[in-house]
Amino acid sequence: MNNFTFYNPTKIIFGKGELKKLDSLVPKNARVLVLYGGGSVKKFGTLDTVLEELKKSKRDIFEFSGIEPNPKFETLMKAVEICRKENITFLLAVGGGSVMDGTKFVSIAVSATEFVGREKELVYTGHNGITLKSALPIGTIVTLPATGSEMNSGGVITLGKDKLAISNPLTFPLFSILDPTLTYTLPSTQVANGIIDTFIHTIEQYVTYPVHATFQDRTSEGILKTMIEIGKETIDNPTNYDLRANLVWNSSMALNGLIGAGVPQDWSIHLLGHELTAVFGIDHAKTLAIVLPSLWRVRIKEKEAKLAQYAQRVWHITEGTTREKALKAIQKTEEFFNSLGISTKLSDYGVTEHQINEVVQGLIRHNFTNISETGDLTPEVAKEIYLKSL
Amino acid sequence: MNNFTFYNPTKIIFGKGELKKLDSLVPKNARVLVLYGGGSVKKFGTLDTVLEELKKSKRDIFEFSGIEPNPKFETLMKAVEICRKENITFLLAVGGGSVMDGTKFVSIAVSATEFVGREKELVYTGHNGITLKSALPIGTIVTLPATGSEMNSGGVITLGKDKLAISNPLTFPLFSILDPTLTYTLPSTQVANGIIDTFIHTIEQYVTYPVHATFQDRTSEGILKTMIEIGKETIDNPTNYDLRANLVWNSSMALNGLIGAGVPQDWSIHLLGHELTAVFGIDHAKTLAIVLPSLWRVRIKEKEAKLAQYAQRVWHITEGTTREKALKAIQKTEEFFNSLGISTKLSDYGVTEHQINEVVQGLIRHNFTNISETGDLTPEVAKEIYLKSL
Repeated sequence: MNNFTFYNPTKIIFGKGELKKLDSLVPKNARVLVLYGGGSVKKFGTLDTVLEELKKSKRDIFEFSGIEPNPKFETLMKAVEICRKENITFLLAVGGGSVMDGTKFVSIAVSATEFVGREKELVYTGHNGITLKSALPIGTIVTLPATGSEMNSGGVITLGKDKLAISNPLTFPLFSILDPTLTYTLPSTQVANGIIDTFIHTIEQYVTYPVHATFQDRTSEGILKTMIEIGKETIDNPTNYDLRANLVWNSSMALNGLIGAGVPQDWSIHLLGHELTAVFGIDHAKTLAIVLPSLWRVRIKEKEAKLAQYAQRVWHITEGTTREKALKAIQKTEEFFNSLGISTKLSDYGVTEHQINEVVQGLIRHNFTNISETGDLTPEVAKEIYLKSL
Repeated sequence: MNNFTFYNPTKIIFGKGELKKLDSLVPKNARVLVLYGGGSVKKFGTLDTVLEELKKSKRDIFEFSGIEPNPKFETLMKAVEICRKENITFLLAVGGGSVMDGTKFVSIAVSATEFVGREKELVYTGHNGITLKSALPIGTIVTLPATGSEMNSGGVITLGKDKLAISNPLTFPLFSILDPTLTYTLPSTQVANGIIDTFIHTIEQYVTYPVHATFQDRTSEGILKTMIEIGKETIDNPTNYDLRANLVWNSSMALNGLIGAGVPQDWSIHLLGHELTAVFGIDHAKTLAIVLPSLWRVRIKEKEAKLAQYAQRVWHITEGTTREKALKAIQKTEEFFNSLGISTKLSDYGVTEHQINEVVQGLIRHNFTNISETGDLTPEVAKEIYLKSL
């Protein structure tokens, strides 16, 4: 096991009806900005309940709507302006990963007064090691299980055509309310995306090379088995509480630092996927489902030992050589994605061979030229992976 | 899945050599009381390294040694006096569960100035719902993997012949340093105790009745499988880093709130065990190993579904009826404890039938008369369990 630091101070309030605890969680006398996306939190009544709760104590409440999927810097800067103008003291994100990620950026940008006028630099906090003194406190109310943003300190922001990571220990939400019933109204394609996202967050921290970390491995395998077991079922039975509760809780656990502590991590599937979203606008989760099978086939040598362990423990594949088990597990994984109605072929999204170079150029432009757990996934290898996924 | 709140703000610094980060973790200018047990932290050099680190910044350092296993109220009150006299601002526990638990009591007792002279009442914070405004901050350096105290807010204190639970959200350690190499010098019986303790912490949160909590169940099963897999091996190979690292990390995970969130819990094995320690002075972990098999046999009806799941997933017992699987798993568990050199028969510890009544009276005196996940484990049932374990 590698050395590690684990820290996660977010308080989770989980379960049916727990939104009713909101008043006790947000500081009294706060000046609260409620941030959300499109109309669904309005349409299905979540926003009304939130506002009702907040009004139970003396607070000044402001709203900011319109945070889009893959939230844009320009949109978020409008929220930053409101915070500055209204002296906002607390940010409440109501939505999925994009709203929560966007809120984290707002939290940083409002507090980092030394960056006024050059907030774009803050979008690179994941890369350039900017340290900050403070950030506005955040609470979240999760309506879409997927990104784990409700229980971590990271986010992804879109700047122009680039998807860039922010990351700061100050942006752990103070609390997150996870009521699985708030996700009942999601369209099935978003639920499928959430399952894939959770699955591949786990994979990026698990299918690397072995370091004998039993807790991390077995916990990862547990999350993967759950996704396989309940994935299709929770899409088909959106109001089954236990199914949805297990999706929601496993998705938080997949990206809160727990399974990645002390093990190698490989975020290549995400990095290759981000470029596909940036160039073609394909949903984040779908890009992951596209990249994973071909990345594994191209990188089978590097990942063979863990792939065979995955084959055996998650898919119960016991026959064959290590290589054969690994290949069989890749096939099973692809079939699992397909069973959720998600195509793993880039061509099914209208992408053709001659467009691949533009995607690879994006990786190079973002300096993702030596990625993966072993640092040797070069643009040439990435090209091979993209071509294989056509 | 049941509704739950999960909160765990302790920062974990894990791995070989990480004690060298201590200076960066304890506040500068602090007045630090270093608390420890007997001579082993002195003998093996851990204390020297700790003091060396603390002295790297301007701090006033005090020491308190002699915290015994099952730490006594009277002993801890001496540390409280030092804190008051010397205006201590930070407590650093160096040791195992008893030192950490004792330090938590000191933290509470020093801060709860309204309880001066009647600190005994604070030993009952686990039961009487006393709320406190503040507690002295705590850091821990773990030398014995077992209790999980390094990553939770509870503890057990001995008052007279009673073992009583303290519990307060203010006593989560600020940080805990877990360096598995610090545990290499432990006597094998203490390592065996740690394995049993970790195993049964997990069991108390897992072998109850099913509520369809897949993350919690599979994570529990992972910890149990690891204990079975590495238990004997890490006793026999005390300086194998990976084995010991997995014991240390799994033992923290077994009692930090994670696997118990949203599921029924049954702390009967512990409560019945505490009375055995109180009356006969048997090691805590050994009392658990004694109680578990007979408690399961007596309570097989209440626990049958989860026992069969445990049989299947942890022991790979696939043949037979639910009852047969459950019984087979109990036998396998008992054999596992025995394989670690731990007897599961109360008579092997010199206890005879006529002494059982005194133990049952202890349960009654402590008001543990309707315990377990279903609240129907009465003193009569407890007596049956004790008698079966002779």
